[in-house]
Amino acid sequence: MSFRLKMDASARSAESNIILALDLPPDRPHQLLQRSLRIFELASPHICAVKINRQLLLPLGLFKGVEEIVKLAHQHDLPAIMDCKINDVGHTNRSIAENYYHAGFDAVIANPFVGWEGGLQPVFDAARELKRGVILLVYMSHKGAFEGYGQTVLDAETKTLKRQYLVFARKAVSWKADGAVVGATYTEKIAELHGILGDEVPIYSPGVGTQGGSVNSAIKAGARFLIVGRSITLAKDPSEAARHVQEEANRCLTRLRS
Amino acid sequence: MSFRLKMDASARSAESNIILALDLPPDRPHQLLQRSLRIFELASPHICAVKINRQLLLPLGLFKGVEEIVKLAHQHDLPAIMDCKINDVGHTNRSIAENYYHAGFDAVIANPFVGWEGGLQPVFDAARELKRGVILLVYMSHKGAFEGYGQTVLDAETKTLKRQYLVFARKAVSWKADGAVVGATYTEKIAELHGILGDEVPIYSPGVGTQGGSVNSAIKAGARFLIVGRSITLAKDPSEAARHVQEEANRCLTRLRS
Repeated sequence: MSFRLKMDASARSAESNIILALDLPPDRPHQLLQRSLRIFELASPHICAVKINRQLLLPLGLFKGVEEIVKLAHQHDLPAIMDCKINDVGHTNRSIAENYYHAGFDAVIANPFVGWEGGLQPVFDAARELKRGVILLVYMSHKGAFEGYGQTVLDAETKTLKRQYLVFARKAVSWKADGAVVGATYTEKIAELHGILGDEVPIYSPGVGTQGGSVNSAIKAGARFLIVGRSITLAKDPSEAARHVQEEANRCLTRLRS
Repeated sequence: MSFRLKMDASARSAESNIILALDLPPDRPHQLLQRSLRIFELASPHICAVKINRQLLLPLGLFKGVEEIVKLAHQHDLPAIMDCKINDVGHTNRSIAENYYHAGFDAVIANPFVGWEGGLQPVFDAARELKRGVILLVYMSHKGAFEGYGQTVLDAETKTLKRQYLVFARKAVSWKADGAVVGATYTEKIAELHGILGDEVPIYSPGVGTQGGSVNSAIKAGARFLIVGRSITLAKDPSEAARHVQEEANRCLTRLRS
């Protein structure tokens, strides 16, 4: 099954479009791993996937702690996404992607800024060979995002001035990306991008909660999946926090469909 | 001593401006580590620093094999640079940088596309606190680099159309970066960028050898350090290959100075 279908199936059976970003404050590796596994278990009934970041990778190691979390996710039939924001030259990108895929990850996140030839093409090749996914960054959730993602560029295809994120969205469609990351802190951009990406490239939206984005506006604007981190992982009761955001998203989806 | 001074001192005492990129083909972790340590030892008399990539990080682990290589570099009085191409949101970027600095790295490589606020500012903060370096990507060595680094953008400061890499070079100067990466495969860009970066931000140039860049043209155009990987690491005699490129670079520097 392709990553795209796997995510749809998971969202359906979990009745959730929430992806848990397993973001925890620094700690000793053993404690960090135990806490990650525990929070994942608590949140797991309310999520459709888990996303792992370099905050876990670097202290835990890929083929040590991180692989253990991926295995646990798969035992719960939940896909695992590696947030590695690939942006190197082709042979390095391919090696990065392959390492994550070999550790069990179902998808990697990559930066389209690096370009296709000798850039991301080898990542898409590896993904197709191994039936895994590639999700592209299209607009990030932090303040400084306007400097790069928001800048005005001369579009090489149309020779007109365009916003960078619109150029990235076109690349996401033509490269057949499995998803596009658009920050929930910029809902007007989610709506604009949803017009280009349609159902072909589902929008993954981080930045809900701690970073200030709203579940309701992100979903109404067209986000397919919400990536939620610290408002679950730092909650007193991560299970209750995950259930809360799951229900809020589901209520919003029900209203939209009716 | 700052990273900048450390690199200058190392280049002087080693009589070399060659940085070894420890890029090796995939292998089992134990073999990969042993081979990396052996090639580093062989090349060490002819280099001024070592650069480590995700091809080693992911299989070896940061606080396992990679830290061992960094320690060996420091025993030889050679700085170690982590090629992690940081391009995430601020709190993640800071955590990535801190992990590498704690493992002993003297500098990290980052992508200015991510912007300053909530982007790279926390990386520069961490670097200043720990007296380490930040090197920025300005133009990469692969074919697809024209899509992002080579695109025409509306410069937010001057409101004029400019090449992306020129905008990045201005950011490198104003953010006080410790270096700028410019691919040796594009010598005309090294020359153009040297005009902006001057002696304030030294140019680190990868892509010599296997990727097609020439030592001579890169140095003549203004590259301060050459990053050399596979033409040393895959050579039958890595020591001889490193000595060869060191001497070629030194001959070129002597000609330039006379």
